[in-house]
Amino acid sequence: MKVIILGSGTSQGVPVIGCKCETCSSSNPKDKRLRTSAYIETNEGLKLLIDTSIDFRQQMLKNKIDNIDAAFYTHHHVDHINGMDDLRQITQRYDKFIDLYANKTTVDEMKISFRYVFDKELIKYKSVPLVKFHVIKNRMFKVKDVEIMPVECMHGNLKIFGYRINNFAYITDCSAISDKELKKLEGLKVLVINALRIRPHPTHFNLQEAIGISKRVKPKRTFFTHLTHDILHEKINSSLPKGIELAYDNLEFRI
Amino acid sequence: MKVIILGSGTSQGVPVIGCKCETCSSSNPKDKRLRTSAYIETNEGLKLLIDTSIDFRQQMLKNKIDNIDAAFYTHHHVDHINGMDDLRQITQRYDKFIDLYANKTTVDEMKISFRYVFDKELIKYKSVPLVKFHVIKNRMFKVKDVEIMPVECMHGNLKIFGYRINNFAYITDCSAISDKELKKLEGLKVLVINALRIRPHPTHFNLQEAIGISKRVKPKRTFFTHLTHDILHEKINSSLPKGIELAYDNLEFRI
Repeated sequence: MKVIILGSGTSQGVPVIGCKCETCSSSNPKDKRLRTSAYIETNEGLKLLIDTSIDFRQQMLKNKIDNIDAAFYTHHHVDHINGMDDLRQITQRYDKFIDLYANKTTVDEMKISFRYVFDKELIKYKSVPLVKFHVIKNRMFKVKDVEIMPVECMHGNLKIFGYRINNFAYITDCSAISDKELKKLEGLKVLVINALRIRPHPTHFNLQEAIGISKRVKPKRTFFTHLTHDILHEKINSSLPKGIELAYDNLEFRI
Repeated sequence: MKVIILGSGTSQGVPVIGCKCETCSSSNPKDKRLRTSAYIETNEGLKLLIDTSIDFRQQMLKNKIDNIDAAFYTHHHVDHINGMDDLRQITQRYDKFIDLYANKTTVDEMKISFRYVFDKELIKYKSVPLVKFHVIKNRMFKVKDVEIMPVECMHGNLKIFGYRINNFAYITDCSAISDKELKKLEGLKVLVINALRIRPHPTHFNLQEAIGISKRVKPKRTFFTHLTHDILHEKINSSLPKGIELAYDNLEFRI
């Protein structure tokens, strides 16, 4: 299975518009962060996406990805969904519908934000992204033969989903996770999890909290994502415990 | 007055994801097109934006623009509005509200798409873009001392606005314009207008139609924008009548 981190940045991305801080001024490409999203190619050849970030088009072009079979959404905040219209470029090219999976709140909100995709006239001319929404519950579901396990987390007061696929799990925008859900993360080879910044934040794990989760889950490798400009790559990455690294845009690994 | 073309591409941008055509494969930076938007700095120092394209953050960073006083919307289609959340980076930095001007349909639709910006709790913590919507009618209005003249056009069946500021006018996504509205474009130094592609299109002027408008309006210079990958810059630009040029991303001119 191949994973590409398409974006490792928080909702504003890094650099922040107009910011002159050390991270925003850094020339290290690992300090350039598009909005959080990941691409997964399974051994069966299934091309999966987690979230259609607002930077989706740029992320597809950069990584030369030209097809997607299905997308899983963590939640409906705009940094995670607002690139969805650009799936149109794929649905037009391959003349197909793409399956979108999310919890009920996310589907309900996306159906409002992207209300025009249900216009039958526009569907006929394929001038909207051709997508099928699927509400998923907090239990295993399949996309073709691939088993996907949602992992329910809290993002402040909002219930959101992370996803486990085989021995890989991806969680972003989490601020709390129950013991029951943590059990789903046993035996992982790779965990990707959000670690917003150094100071605490009401709706996202900070660095110390994310380190705590990694130490409980004990995956072979952990990558931190959804990073603000508080996180200067070289400085913070070298300070992390063994087995924990900062993710960065276009990081690719095989599991 | 300074104008920067922030994006000269149609809704999909150029290159199109997965496309191997001559334009999408071109190494000419003028064939790389983000979604249509423009920045205007008036002689009074007012920083104005037309549309918050889905590529808004990238466009601000590329052109080192870190402040906006007001934005005018042409219409509510996602390529023209979906970057609005990134105004948050400006409203947080400068601790201010940004004024957004549009016709009633556009404001109504944007209020649905960006419904979270009205959440009082989120406004208190400045974790949403701080914006004020203003419905404008088809008559002159002022932003501080600058006079802005809407120019009503048809985008298929949808009434949309172009804008004239001093002797500059910007029109995109237009497929028809009445004689009465064309009169508002007399005496222009620069006209920016959409010219989608070579073949006709039901809701956008193609190249020939845009040339026709330019010949009627007779501005000193005309730039074509909202271009698809049908338009290979070098080939098409050199074939245009005198005084008409293709716009390209980051093109800057003074009027």
